Amino acid sequence: MKAVEFRPLRGIPQVHAGDDLAALLGDAADRDVRAGDILVVTHKIVSKAEGRVVRLDSVTPSSMAAAFAAEWGRDARQVEIVLRESRRVVRMARGMIISETRHGFVCANAGVDLSNAGGLELAVLLPEDPDASARLLREKLSRRLGFDLPVIITDSFGRPWRSGIVNVAIGVAGMEPVTDYRGVRDPHGYELSASVMGTADAIAAAAELVMGKTGGVPAAVARGIDFHGGEGGAAALVLEPEKNLFP
Amino acid sequence: MKAVEFRPLRGIPQVHAGDDLAALLGDAADRDVRAGDILVVTHKIVSKAEGRVVRLDSVTPSSMAAAFAAEWGRDARQVEIVLRESRRVVRMARGMIISETRHGFVCANAGVDLSNAGGLELAVLLPEDPDASARLLREKLSRRLGFDLPVIITDSFGRPWRSGIVNVAIGVAGMEPVTDYRGVRDPHGYELSASVMGTADAIAAAAELVMGKTGGVPAAVARGIDFHGGEGGAAALVLEPEKNLFP
Repeated sequence: MKAVEFRPLRGIPQVHAGDDLAALLGDAADRDVRAGDILVVTHKIVSKAEGRVVRLDSVTPSSMAAAFAAEWGRDARQVEIVLRESRRVVRMARGMIISETRHGFVCANAGVDLSNAGGLELAVLLPEDPDASARLLREKLSRRLGFDLPVIITDSFGRPWRSGIVNVAIGVAGMEPVTDYRGVRDPHGYELSASVMGTADAIAAAAELVMGKTGGVPAAVARGIDFHGGEGGAAALVLEPEKNLFP
Repeated sequence: MKAVEFRPLRGIPQVHAGDDLAALLGDAADRDVRAGDILVVTHKIVSKAEGRVVRLDSVTPSSMAAAFAAEWGRDARQVEIVLRESRRVVRMARGMIISETRHGFVCANAGVDLSNAGGLELAVLLPEDPDASARLLREKLSRRLGFDLPVIITDSFGRPWRSGIVNVAIGVAGMEPVTDYRGVRDPHGYELSASVMGTADAIAAAAELVMGKTGGVPAAVARGIDFHGGEGGAAALVLEPEKNLFP
């Protein structure tokens, strides 16, 4: 095992709907990215470039959204958007909504963040298909750079039983999202028991350390990771129903 | 934000009950650790040094442990140890046991790993008090090195709804385990909504990338992290009951 490094990717401008995100990232990547690196991108700039932004003043809440929002002091329009972005509500209590998104992710608020631009109140949604977004960035950037650049798109998720949010991978292209050690034995001959590592999630979590919640750095470079190449796909990071004890 | 680096800490020998772990880590740290670094240690060598190891052939399973093990093809002695290490069973189904440990961690098998040494089948338990273990390592190593060295003790946990395990912090000394951005506003004046980051968990997750499940590297150095000093305590990473939707 060698050292790994996470570097903030600097010089990315504010992103707006319709921007060519690969071009914006490419200008930064030309300076800071090498063969063997992995590019980590927060979903927020992906969603913005893809126009996955809703003006709150365009939303009419349902009666359920309005009632829940009134009971818990939340914005009914945001609650409405969260419910629209969910295919299943897992828990809806104490003002919190945990739901399953169309992608299969179980998270708070269906990944919908509130934002503000030029006085407009906005909700930033998850990308429609974060794996497709990652694939497109990988293709365009790999062509530009002349080497294959795997891409991980992240969001920050809360966790049951753990305090604090951590970044996870919601889109993956160009690498295996998990590392499977099943059948591999430890130095004493014991088969490793809990032996599928959430590698892309670990990379996503680490990248947050250099992106920062307030630093305004929406992308990072992971260098020196011993990853397995592959097509990717964040579905590999969603627990199969038969292993899921928390439906 | 600057770059951060994770380095495997090499040259740590096999650890046995009664070993002075700080001395063993110190020999490696003398070469590879600098002021400003954080030391990340897998709990397995902490547990071994502290004698938190049980011979399976010394364990007599209860009838519940025996019945569950027989139904699901598990080792009844391991099931018995898992139940003894739990203060509450959260789910016990399909051969899996999710429970709350005496420390308040909710995880599979109460953190009990099976191992093998010299032909003996062993169960490695979590440290009795991982924060105390981290504090002791911090004190001894800081004295030896001449600068303060925060310490994170890790275990790998599965996650509800996510596939693959990731490392989390189960013991923390010398730094704030979470970074609290509440009250901080984004560039547009919006208060950050989900704004307590599980910093120590992110560091733990990243360290696994250089320790590796099979690499036999039980410790790593995190360099360049913009952390907040403090006493620490992994309890800050356990979700408060009033925020926990999954009792």
